[in-house]
Amino acid sequence: MAYPNGKLSEEKVFKDPVHRYVHVRDKLIWDLIGTREFQRLRRIKQLGTTYLTFHGAEHSRFNHSLGVYEIVRRMVDDVFKGRPEWDDSERELCLAAALLHDLGHGPFSHSFEKVFHLDHEDFTRGIILGDTEVNQVLRKVSPGFPQDVAEVIAKTYKNKQVVSLISSQIDADRMDYLQRDAYYTGVSYGHFDMERILRVMRPREDQIVIKESGMHAVEDYIMSRYQMYWQVYFHPVTRSAEVILTKILHRAKQLHDEGYVFTHAPVHFYSIFEGKLTLEDYVKLDESIILYYFQAWEDEEDAILSDLCRRFINRQLFQYVEFNPNEEMSAYFELTSLFKEAGIDPSYYLVVDSSSDLPYDFYRPGEEEERLPIHLLTQNGQIKELSRQSAIVESISGKRRTDHKLYYPKDLICDGTKHPEAKMKIRQLLGLT
Amino acid sequence: MAYPNGKLSEEKVFKDPVHRYVHVRDKLIWDLIGTREFQRLRRIKQLGTTYLTFHGAEHSRFNHSLGVYEIVRRMVDDVFKGRPEWDDSERELCLAAALLHDLGHGPFSHSFEKVFHLDHEDFTRGIILGDTEVNQVLRKVSPGFPQDVAEVIAKTYKNKQVVSLISSQIDADRMDYLQRDAYYTGVSYGHFDMERILRVMRPREDQIVIKESGMHAVEDYIMSRYQMYWQVYFHPVTRSAEVILTKILHRAKQLHDEGYVFTHAPVHFYSIFEGKLTLEDYVKLDESIILYYFQAWEDEEDAILSDLCRRFINRQLFQYVEFNPNEEMSAYFELTSLFKEAGIDPSYYLVVDSSSDLPYDFYRPGEEEERLPIHLLTQNGQIKELSRQSAIVESISGKRRTDHKLYYPKDLICDGTKHPEAKMKIRQLLGLT
Amino acid sequence: MAYPNGKLSEEKVFKDPVHRYVHVRDKLIWDLIGTREFQRLRRIKQLGTTYLTFHGAEHSRFNHSLGVYEIVRRMVDDVFKGRPEWDDSERELCLAAALLHDLGHGPFSHSFEKVFHLDHEDFTRGIILGDTEVNQVLRKVSPGFPQDVAEVIAKTYKNKQVVSLISSQIDADRMDYLQRDAYYTGVSYGHFDMERILRVMRPREDQIVIKESGMHAVEDYIMSRYQMYWQVYFHPVTRSAEVILTKILHRAKQLHDEGYVFTHAPVHFYSIFEGKLTLEDYVKLDESIILYYFQAWEDEEDAILSDLCRRFINRQLFQYVEFNPNEEMSAYFELTSLFKEAGIDPSYYLVVDSSSDLPYDFYRPGEEEERLPIHLLTQNGQIKELSRQSAIVESISGKRRTDHKLYYPKDLICDGTKHPEAKMKIRQLLGLT
Amino acid sequence: MAYPNGKLSEEKVFKDPVHRYVHVRDKLIWDLIGTREFQRLRRIKQLGTTYLTFHGAEHSRFNHSLGVYEIVRRMVDDVFKGRPEWDDSERELCLAAALLHDLGHGPFSHSFEKVFHLDHEDFTRGIILGDTEVNQVLRKVSPGFPQDVAEVIAKTYKNKQVVSLISSQIDADRMDYLQRDAYYTGVSYGHFDMERILRVMRPREDQIVIKESGMHAVEDYIMSRYQMYWQVYFHPVTRSAEVILTKILHRAKQLHDEGYVFTHAPVHFYSIFEGKLTLEDYVKLDESIILYYFQAWEDEEDAILSDLCRRFINRQLFQYVEFNPNEEMSAYFELTSLFKEAGIDPSYYLVVDSSSDLPYDFYRPGEEEERLPIHLLTQNGQIKELSRQSAIVESISGKRRTDHKLYYPKDLICDGTKHPEAKMKIRQLLGLT
Repeated sequence: MAYPNGKLSEEKVFKDPVHRYVHVRDKLIWDLIGTREFQRLRRIKQLGTTYLTFHGAEHSRFNHSLGVYEIVRRMVDDVFKGRPEWDDSERELCLAAALLHDLGHGPFSHSFEKVFHLDHEDFTRGIILGDTEVNQVLRKVSPGFPQDVAEVIAKTYKNKQVVSLISSQIDADRMDYLQRDAYYTGVSYGHFDMERILRVMRPREDQIVIKESGMHAVEDYIMSRYQMYWQVYFHPVTRSAEVILTKILHRAKQLHDEGYVFTHAPVHFYSIFEGKLTLEDYVKLDESIILYYFQAWEDEEDAILSDLCRRFINRQLFQYVEFNPNEEMSAYFELTSLFKEAGIDPSYYLVVDSSSDLPYDFYRPGEEEERLPIHLLTQNGQIKELSRQSAIVESISGKRRTDHKLYYPKDLICDGTKHPEAKMKIRQLLGLT
Repeated sequence: MAYPNGKLSEEKVFKDPVHRYVHVRDKLIWDLIGTREFQRLRRIKQLGTTYLTFHGAEHSRFNHSLGVYEIVRRMVDDVFKGRPEWDDSERELCLAAALLHDLGHGPFSHSFEKVFHLDHEDFTRGIILGDTEVNQVLRKVSPGFPQDVAEVIAKTYKNKQVVSLISSQIDADRMDYLQRDAYYTGVSYGHFDMERILRVMRPREDQIVIKESGMHAVEDYIMSRYQMYWQVYFHPVTRSAEVILTKILHRAKQLHDEGYVFTHAPVHFYSIFEGKLTLEDYVKLDESIILYYFQAWEDEEDAILSDLCRRFINRQLFQYVEFNPNEEMSAYFELTSLFKEAGIDPSYYLVVDSSSDLPYDFYRPGEEEERLPIHLLTQNGQIKELSRQSAIVESISGKRRTDHKLYYPKDLICDGTKHPEAKMKIRQLLGLT
Repeated sequence: MAYPNGKLSEEKVFKDPVHRYVHVRDKLIWDLIGTREFQRLRRIKQLGTTYLTFHGAEHSRFNHSLGVYEIVRRMVDDVFKGRPEWDDSERELCLAAALLHDLGHGPFSHSFEKVFHLDHEDFTRGIILGDTEVNQVLRKVSPGFPQDVAEVIAKTYKNKQVVSLISSQIDADRMDYLQRDAYYTGVSYGHFDMERILRVMRPREDQIVIKESGMHAVEDYIMSRYQMYWQVYFHPVTRSAEVILTKILHRAKQLHDEGYVFTHAPVHFYSIFEGKLTLEDYVKLDESIILYYFQAWEDEEDAILSDLCRRFINRQLFQYVEFNPNEEMSAYFELTSLFKEAGIDPSYYLVVDSSSDLPYDFYRPGEEEERLPIHLLTQNGQIKELSRQSAIVESISGKRRTDHKLYYPKDLICDGTKHPEAKMKIRQLLGLT
Repeated sequence: MAYPNGKLSEEKVFKDPVHRYVHVRDKLIWDLIGTREFQRLRRIKQLGTTYLTFHGAEHSRFNHSLGVYEIVRRMVDDVFKGRPEWDDSERELCLAAALLHDLGHGPFSHSFEKVFHLDHEDFTRGIILGDTEVNQVLRKVSPGFPQDVAEVIAKTYKNKQVVSLISSQIDADRMDYLQRDAYYTGVSYGHFDMERILRVMRPREDQIVIKESGMHAVEDYIMSRYQMYWQVYFHPVTRSAEVILTKILHRAKQLHDEGYVFTHAPVHFYSIFEGKLTLEDYVKLDESIILYYFQAWEDEEDAILSDLCRRFINRQLFQYVEFNPNEEMSAYFELTSLFKEAGIDPSYYLVVDSSSDLPYDFYRPGEEEERLPIHLLTQNGQIKELSRQSAIVESISGKRRTDHKLYYPKDLICDGTKHPEAKMKIRQLLGLT
């Protein structure tokens, strides 16, 4: 089956700064873009709080989703079409899954998921399969099509080639976000020769492999990813904003649990706070809603909530020091006591944050978040795993690098009007004097 | 007088996609950036509703304001410093005025100003002179400094050289936004050789002139501006979104005036609706607040308000036809009647929108929005007005081009379940059949 | 008929800085690129003496020819294929003509053609139809194919759509060189949205028209062309180098005519000097040969020849003043006399150079170098000439701008050891004192 | 002492595609650029035969030399000036050495040096210290200045900070050529954030160190270098052209030694062939001269010389197979015999070529071509060697990667008209059947 009136009478294009143009010929795609659930992604930033570090990073997930779609479109239409071992009948499925892969992301989703134990992938599946405009569009292809799309995104779909287009170590998702995030932040790290990589991709058995002649382009891509992680995604200032955001959510929930009477009631949060979040409520959340509440809560009586909101809205972030959990736990406990002594609640104002990345790893059965590895196709048809061919990739393969930082509000501990002695000790322990 | 501890111990930089880096050495500038009024500009998009046409245009006025500051900094530090006819003591004033020139912009300011008869320049002055963090920072330079900054932005400051840096036909404001808006939208029109233009700018008497050798770079800049206006700023789809936005504001005010009981009361709008807007209320407005209300109002009982909000949030915009007010007014009146007959309120659903631009004009005393003209400095020291030297500029000089469009909701008039006859006549008049 | 084994087993690509990649799938094109006549274009600079002004402009006609081919390939494969009014059977002809359109260019061809009354188009035809490797390759398509290719390049081919791809006001030739020359010189003027223009090109009757929706992109292209002419192609320093080059060729020919015995005999020039240039001799000429002679001639006894060669090789160019032939002829004659008096031969050292451009013009029957005009296709299928729709284009349409300069060797006339009085008068007339 | 009339009355600029503009304020630099020895670099390609692989790589050493100068100028004027541990009095020396560092390069210098045992660094010193225009300009600063410049370039100058600006693992030379070669070839590998690196460079004792906060930018630079080496500089097609070039020079010398009478005598080569090369002769050599001879020699009677020249000029290169000298020497000897049997001289037509690179290495005393290592400056003032801080750099540090290829003329061994049996065996051994 196929979408009714499958092709638009005239191709539509979106001007895109990264791929120049995003081309849409399929009515299916055009209609999906027009749904309220997809339009909602305009109100969710691609990089969460990163805009507080890199002011250019104000782009949305809508922006990125179109890009992933466009890359997959080029793969299937310009590279794979007509090749052996490629099934053209999966084309619409590839395009739809690419477009919708981030559909379930919520506002500042990293922090939200952590605090409320949510998983955006559940919501993606929920929106695709539930009573939504997206579902209505997808069902026009066939009754089973929404389920297929959901399975591709969940990586459980039977045709692993299709899955790997958006969920492998070198998929359209990563290729788009590295370039796009580099473009909007303005950093010089996210560049690699995507056109070259697309040209050397080949469907082979249950995966997409890369012709060996393109190995250096892939190395460059892996390095871009490595650099973007450490230069942009794990930037300590961004993490400071996330720490505060997380603590605001914690505080609001705690106040709600304790029966605190909000001046500005957290109506949109009730079902989350109470663990009864519905799809309908979830879809109503976006970053304008969150920012609305945070601004309203600047006027709450609760000093912690209002202070944290003020910090987030006006970008009065926490400072940080490097922290080694293996050696410095006693100092941490001492600081905790001193914070209490100084009247600063350490559960909100003294926060350890860790980040880690695994820039490339080959398949390890049993790991939770296993990623399909990158395989090279040699001239004589053999298939070899990348890190065994590339010294550079081998050097960073499977090596998880973790980085811990201790965040604190410098202004509070430098203001000596109250508890000057405790604060002096804090400053000494933090190396501020 | 000068700002206390005037220089930062180490230069701060912002990574900027357009200018590569924004450099801050002055504590004054650093402190201004940190104020809540300046941080608020992060929540106001530079191009209003344009992101609904060009999905990349999600950048904020914060982003742009840093850029204008950086251009002025390069002018005064790299080009003008030490030249005859330039007064270095105005440096801090130039930098502060550049940074703050858009401070008073509100959410979707074009529409807001139109509907509520506001002027963002009043609010810029208000924030600079009022009881604000910005004012506190500025006063540290000297008690009269806030007034000077306000005058530069209001173009009334005595030293017209300073004024012209941010308010002439070729000022830092325009140079930044043309490049920045082109970068984020991805269009290829906004490029010109700014580095060349900066190099040939010379302070001369009460203005900044351009060495004649740079005339072609200036022509290129004027053409960029012309193209950006017609390709981006006046894009009919963007205007469609603005039409809807405007009508939402009108409707909400009307309902308020009529005593309609909102399910979701427009608390933030009360003072605007009632013509009693204070600076404090104004500063609380940003686009997250507006989007919050528009989403809430999707559930209002009033059918017009909820429909318009739904259209805006989900980008279900109006379509348009070209409209010639000189020849087609009778058709317009006929359409108005037919809309009523069809049960579609024409005051909200049949809207004429006009846009016009004057890409370059020389000084004409008495005009309201007079712009300082661009003057060229010839090799032998003469000063000549640009449009008399450049055939290209002459060709578009002083010629106002106006474009009228008639916007309407295609879905409503194509839905023939009710009033099929009136709707058929409407479709005929609009050329849809 | 078609080329034997028409498609390569695997697509070949050339990495190209302007178009990212040049794609070759046709064995015909691959074989043409491999011919000695095409490889010769590597030794002829695209912009002649411009590298002495813009040091980046060292790119060859080989470079440009691949680019023109690639643009035409995109037109026919990506835009025109399958459209009504387009004849796909002309595909190979379009590609071959695009690739070979500059085949007959000689070294520094502008100057060569002027001095020796040659026409590179004659040589292009000669190489295509003569006893050459190019001809052998072309004949494999069909016996008449070389003639067809030659006719397309000569603009006499019956299918004017094919002709216009490389010879109209907005052809692949211009689109490539504007972008390429901008890229290599580094100027910011040659940018326009070629991808957009390609997307709106439509074959219609005997021409290629542009959909009206792309008018602004075309305006931008016309302006790019205008700017490139005045900023790059007619740059006075480049013209100074050409003046010297021209005078070297004049001098060498004159010496040859007079029976002067060269230390380094101009073997490669004999047939040109004597008006008996053969195709075989012509093809042997390239810029390495010319530079070889110019360096050798630095040691000739003839003072004028050796001085001019030294100037060219070591970039000791002439200076210039603006010159108005209508008003300043008497000054020119006086200068001529004074140069003679000062012992400086004015026929080599006092040179008037004029350049003029016609950035865009509509068709005027009877003009020598008539260009096919640009036509827009309106939404309702009408065809309108560009300059009647665009105010900007109209402003520069058909207006020839001419610029005259008088070139002279400043060092010689400032060296007062001999004929100080005459030289002082010269300096006065030239405004050097 | 300083250059007389040290500053130009107005800054001169060169438009540069890589650095936007090259700025010259010093009359010393302006005069050096005007010398015949520096202008000669326009006739020597930066990347030798690479243009036969990447058609964009037609840029000259003149182009690159200006770029290196500009980077050093930014270092000393924008970053180092006024810092502790930096001696501003070395400024002119730094600029001059940067500009002139490649002055002694000859045509296709890699091959020339190899065949004739020349060293371009000797000629650089020779030109700087000899009877040249460059020397005359330099001596105006002071009698000892030419010697200082030569020592900086030879890395023997006493102030090692100055030396390291153009001769360290992260010097202006490398930073320019990586970016420039990437720009002209069009590959996507040479990008890194030079502006960031410049900003974090600090003079410290006898070197220039990098603030630790810039480590990732340096990693990116190292990876760019690694990629450029394997993707561009060691490209097998480029090496094929170099193999042929080398064999042409060998053949011509051998013929000269054997008393062969050239139709076109190698006048410019006499002194090289006879080991009596003078500076004066050397400076006359450039690539136009070489290409002149190669074209002339296509008509020589000697079949090998004319065939090799034809191959070079018309880009009819050799093919290659991978070659493992440890395992395949017996096959190589067998091929040698078979080539002789087939009438193809293996000393010219069967060539092993090896390339190797050491992308980054720390200091190892006693090594011939030792490079100053890159040191990081930590926040608390410690200095650490890069490869001990960066896992990526460590992974490629000190690891020499060598690659051997066997080059041969496929056309000759596939042409079975003579010696078909030997040729069939050759094809079998080379895996061509």
